[in-house]
Amino acid sequence: MSSAGATPRKLKKMDGSAEGEEGRDYDAETQKALEEIDSCQNEIDALNERASEEILKVEQKYNKLRKPYFEKRNDIIKRIPNFWVTAFVNHPQIMAILEDEEEDCLHFLSKLEVEEFDDIKSGYRINFHFEDNPYFENNVLTKEFHLGSTGNPASQSTPIRWKEGHDLTKKPKDRNASKGRKRAVEQKTFFSWFTDHGDPSADDIAEGI
Amino acid sequence: MSSAGATPRKLKKMDGSAEGEEGRDYDAETQKALEEIDSCQNEIDALNERASEEILKVEQKYNKLRKPYFEKRNDIIKRIPNFWVTAFVNHPQIMAILEDEEEDCLHFLSKLEVEEFDDIKSGYRINFHFEDNPYFENNVLTKEFHLGSTGNPASQSTPIRWKEGHDLTKKPKDRNASKGRKRAVEQKTFFSWFTDHGDPSADDIAEGI
Repeated sequence: MSSAGATPRKLKKMDGSAEGEEGRDYDAETQKALEEIDSCQNEIDALNERASEEILKVEQKYNKLRKPYFEKRNDIIKRIPNFWVTAFVNHPQIMAILEDEEEDCLHFLSKLEVEEFDDIKSGYRINFHFEDNPYFENNVLTKEFHLGSTGNPASQSTPIRWKEGHDLTKKPKDRNASKGRKRAVEQKTFFSWFTDHGDPSADDIAEGI
Repeated sequence: MSSAGATPRKLKKMDGSAEGEEGRDYDAETQKALEEIDSCQNEIDALNERASEEILKVEQKYNKLRKPYFEKRNDIIKRIPNFWVTAFVNHPQIMAILEDEEEDCLHFLSKLEVEEFDDIKSGYRINFHFEDNPYFENNVLTKEFHLGSTGNPASQSTPIRWKEGHDLTKKPKDRNASKGRKRAVEQKTFFSWFTDHGDPSADDIAEGI
């Protein structure tokens, strides 16, 4: 909900005046009133800014307070066999993109962390911790989402160092043959999600995690 | 974004066990781990609750601080002829539902207030203050939105005491003839929006205001 109030620009539009002709369209009294609204609005904006900062501080404080519990929970989770792959298999959106071989690979996923950036509003990263596994060399795969106040959201992820013949982003029959070839059919899978940075704003997988 | 974590129920689902058979499906170690996760989750939930309360306090504090500026702004606005009707006419969604006669009527709209309920999250009301006018007796028309944490959002509004022959929710030709008749064609107008409480969650007009 926006706060109630029309800006002077909206009033100008109705008069059909071009922008840049400020202060020419109204009688002196209306002009003065518009200027007073402007300065009043500046005070309100400053208060809004202060409110956002205070709320951010509260969120940061509780992120710190929650952290040890998340860490404790992660430690407990490690004692449950196949916790994360089970969670993924039971999640409708994630399940829909999981291929059989990816599911095998995710048995090595031992820990999952969601870290908000310090200022909270600018984005977050998801850290996937893996045990030693036959698929890739990395121990941690990270996917980051940068929301940013200007421009479109963007994402980036750790380059996966696939082991020979185990690149799950290639079609099975291509794996040992022509490595450079692009996937013939574009089908969404877990690792194609991980490496795709096309349109993070429509990312229902990250939301699910 | 949900915080990372699968609930014990999700794990149970995978095993195909019926609900209500808690504690029967796992070996002792996993069962113990699940209970520890539960109690850890309770601590996290309690922190989340405290965080929400603190954020609410900040919002309430700044609502109080902003109030005098909103009041001052409303006083200034009164000095600008036709401020609100001009703002409405320049708003694409509101413009789309404004009939000519309603626009005339809104020339008497002198003040518009948006009041959040004290607890902020439960809803808000929009107060439309009118000068004496040929259309209705009320000086203030209020539309309230109750969001509520359970159930669907609901809205209610002041019954409008229309003056004889000026009920803008009736079709012009019906006004003096058969007053009880329903509008033959259902077309959205400003006052039909005001009196309609069908589906507040899809209310783009209230969002606009």
